[in-house]
Amino acid sequence: MELLGTQFIGNTTSALSKHTFHGVDPKTGDPLSGDFHESTEEEVDLAIVKAERAFKEYSQLSGNDRANFLEAIADEILALDHSLIMRAENETSLPFPRIQGERGRTVNQLRLFAKVIRKGHWLDARIDTALPDRKPLPRSDLRHLHRPLGPVAVFGASNFPLAFSVAGGDTASALASGCTVVVKGHPAHPGTSELIARAILTAAEKTNMPEGVFSMVQGQKHEVGAWLVKHPLIQAVGFTGSFKGGKALYDTANRREIPIPVFAEMGSSNPVFILPGALKEQSKTIAKSLVGSITLGVGQFCTNPGLTFIPDGESLLFEESLVEHVKSSPAGTMLTAGIKDAYQQATSELTKDPAVTDLACGEESEGSFGVSAKVYKVAYQDYKSRPEWAHEIFGPASIIINTADKQSLLEAATALEGHLTATVHGTDEDMLEYQELFQILERKVGRVVVNGYPTGVEVCDAMVHGGPYPATTAPQTTSVGTNAIKRFVRPVCYQDYPNSLLPDALKNSNPLGITRMVNGLFTKEPLQ
Amino acid sequence: MELLGTQFIGNTTSALSKHTFHGVDPKTGDPLSGDFHESTEEEVDLAIVKAERAFKEYSQLSGNDRANFLEAIADEILALDHSLIMRAENETSLPFPRIQGERGRTVNQLRLFAKVIRKGHWLDARIDTALPDRKPLPRSDLRHLHRPLGPVAVFGASNFPLAFSVAGGDTASALASGCTVVVKGHPAHPGTSELIARAILTAAEKTNMPEGVFSMVQGQKHEVGAWLVKHPLIQAVGFTGSFKGGKALYDTANRREIPIPVFAEMGSSNPVFILPGALKEQSKTIAKSLVGSITLGVGQFCTNPGLTFIPDGESLLFEESLVEHVKSSPAGTMLTAGIKDAYQQATSELTKDPAVTDLACGEESEGSFGVSAKVYKVAYQDYKSRPEWAHEIFGPASIIINTADKQSLLEAATALEGHLTATVHGTDEDMLEYQELFQILERKVGRVVVNGYPTGVEVCDAMVHGGPYPATTAPQTTSVGTNAIKRFVRPVCYQDYPNSLLPDALKNSNPLGITRMVNGLFTKEPLQ
Repeated sequence: MELLGTQFIGNTTSALSKHTFHGVDPKTGDPLSGDFHESTEEEVDLAIVKAERAFKEYSQLSGNDRANFLEAIADEILALDHSLIMRAENETSLPFPRIQGERGRTVNQLRLFAKVIRKGHWLDARIDTALPDRKPLPRSDLRHLHRPLGPVAVFGASNFPLAFSVAGGDTASALASGCTVVVKGHPAHPGTSELIARAILTAAEKTNMPEGVFSMVQGQKHEVGAWLVKHPLIQAVGFTGSFKGGKALYDTANRREIPIPVFAEMGSSNPVFILPGALKEQSKTIAKSLVGSITLGVGQFCTNPGLTFIPDGESLLFEESLVEHVKSSPAGTMLTAGIKDAYQQATSELTKDPAVTDLACGEESEGSFGVSAKVYKVAYQDYKSRPEWAHEIFGPASIIINTADKQSLLEAATALEGHLTATVHGTDEDMLEYQELFQILERKVGRVVVNGYPTGVEVCDAMVHGGPYPATTAPQTTSVGTNAIKRFVRPVCYQDYPNSLLPDALKNSNPLGITRMVNGLFTKEPLQ
Repeated sequence: MELLGTQFIGNTTSALSKHTFHGVDPKTGDPLSGDFHESTEEEVDLAIVKAERAFKEYSQLSGNDRANFLEAIADEILALDHSLIMRAENETSLPFPRIQGERGRTVNQLRLFAKVIRKGHWLDARIDTALPDRKPLPRSDLRHLHRPLGPVAVFGASNFPLAFSVAGGDTASALASGCTVVVKGHPAHPGTSELIARAILTAAEKTNMPEGVFSMVQGQKHEVGAWLVKHPLIQAVGFTGSFKGGKALYDTANRREIPIPVFAEMGSSNPVFILPGALKEQSKTIAKSLVGSITLGVGQFCTNPGLTFIPDGESLLFEESLVEHVKSSPAGTMLTAGIKDAYQQATSELTKDPAVTDLACGEESEGSFGVSAKVYKVAYQDYKSRPEWAHEIFGPASIIINTADKQSLLEAATALEGHLTATVHGTDEDMLEYQELFQILERKVGRVVVNGYPTGVEVCDAMVHGGPYPATTAPQTTSVGTNAIKRFVRPVCYQDYPNSLLPDALKNSNPLGITRMVNGLFTKEPLQ
């Protein structure tokens, strides 16, 4: 399929700017085919105006109609077949199986949200029926429903060219909720973005969605993102990326005349705690799997474990094993020159620091954006005085912190900033001894993992991919899993509405057959 | 009961500052008994440090234990009996039946939240069980629960000295969620605040709650509020009051190193639309009830109807009837000198404006903070060019806007800012003809009322007391009704936890007997 390099504004393509950019092969640094036009402010505005117009119709569609649309997107993505996988591989250098797996995740995610909106429970439909004879005052008939916010701006992430990008979790959950979407494609994979955008638009046409339900603009310039977030018709923002990028959008959104929510997932260093019993009994197994988690996807995961706290004393075997596995870790190719440079800079600063021990380095890197895995070791006393060490290094690097005793381990946990995940390895005895640690950690992160590894974020009902600031700008939400849909809605109460005027989800006869809370009890029964 | 005039910091009283203030009788402007000490920064800090310490224990208590505490608060408030009603009447000049009613609302609200946390559904307990044999990758055991945020700062409102004040909806829902609370009492009713604070502390002692679960500081100075919101241990803010006050706290919270959510309900002008058929058939009835709603509680309700849009032509009878009822409206006494002055200034500016017709004025006011009801009439063309007319006037004033046709009525609705409520009066025919109006309004407000009046906010499952900015700073939430509890929690996911380490709500045996989502289905059954 030939790449057009335009903006996709509803049903029309547009390329008003003469400035273009291109994808880059991370293995060689060479440009890839396709000239992609930078979006202009006029194009951003047009996409949003269309999104607002489409919202009026789209937000009134049934969950069933929207589910058909989501499923059609999944089908169209699969229909792209090899051309998609090839282009994504060219632009990201992620291995084929990884991209195939990510495509599966993306498609399953769309289908899962289709299921969610067919079932309807997410609407939080609630009915308190009228009590005309209540004393001293009668009660009105009151009905409650989640309603979509309006046009949503979504920013594609660099590290998941499919699952967190144009048709990723943010787009899927926003479209599921009844919001219309304008995506800014990530400039590191513009061709992949275009293929997916066209798949979505084909699906929209096939399922008779209103024009403007989805648009995509492209651009390397930060202005494109700012135009989106500042536009008065945009009602919410979904973002996955760096702290710097997310914070900038968050501040922009808060400075608007009408502030809007920004759901920015900005990564974290995902601390791991290895407790004394586990260290004694499992050090080889843990070391091996931990290195696997550190180097997975060349460390380019939001949930990559960047900090590991281990008790002093019993750590020798663990460290030896860690060194062995790191040394034999193959080098990897990073997504972009910028990501590679940031990684090289952060790791060389650590290496230069006299308080840091270079514990091990992986195989030497090849290719243009190639890097090696690195593991460092520091003493807890030094760690305490260097808050910058606790910040995320995006890539396959990790710091081991030796803590002298239980007290300093708990102190380290208490001093943590917000992260996406925390992990604890322990025996049954450790768990009893360290109960307080778990109470501390659940205030610091969105997900606590026991005897496992933080990479691998399941898309399911119970997932929380989120966490306190600065891991995200919206700690009360998740960006992965079925609850992600709730980010894009707002409760509305309908008082004494005639039945015919109510949304179907709240009509007496319960035509959607959904579970509702009626006078405090859950039921699928119609109202008498 | 003698008033101490101190801060109530956990179990201790404190009065470090020599600066004191007093309550004022709105009928006379005279000071009331009791010297209330301004809180110092040290006292605010101490209260918050105690709240953080108490949180560690309180957040781990069962819903049942917390429910006992809430119910004990209700009992202690009722035990204050006449002394509470008298003091509240002295400080606010609200009539006895209103205060008695408000006490009932406050007590019922506490008991309702007790019921909610005993039932446990609000926890959104979700379990996705492990799938060890899944291909290509196994699934971990993942469990999801709402967990409380930490210490919460609550600001009492002036206009509801009980139901939106020290033991009002914010405190009740925050304590129910497992958060600890530091209240800043509203300086317009310091004696009422103290009585309630002492009732809460007595209840905390009787039910063995940890010290610091609740504290109250007092003050007239804005600094006291800023100290609370800036304190790094405070995790969320509940506020009901003016736009200016709420916006200042919101900005302060966003400028923190770690921003926190501010749930500020800042009032609105609650537009009313009277459609042609209803105006023809019901003008007398609507006019009478509308005046009742405008003047209820001397117009000092967040949901007071401040704007009424009526179609030109058929409006004469409605206006005549409106004038008749406004003229015979008794004068009222406002809560504070500041509120009275703001009302007088806003209404005299309208009166001076040549584009505004003074339609009617209520009976002449008496007493120190007395005011009269006022209703104005403007043409839609003028209204369009004066955005300031759409802003809330806190008190019994309302503006009638004559709209020439359906198009301008829809245009007026589309141009609205965010409000708490909107109301539509219409016949069945009107409803059919104006379907678009309802679609516009549900994007503008938290609650749409049909053929009723916006004042009167039911405390129930389906209520939404909220709405888009600038009505609130948190449009995705409600501050009244059972869903208000969700403001103070954050989802946490527990991955592969040993059963003994899980919170009771997520344990295999379901010891709390709550409804949970297990592998996508709702059930109270234990896990095998």
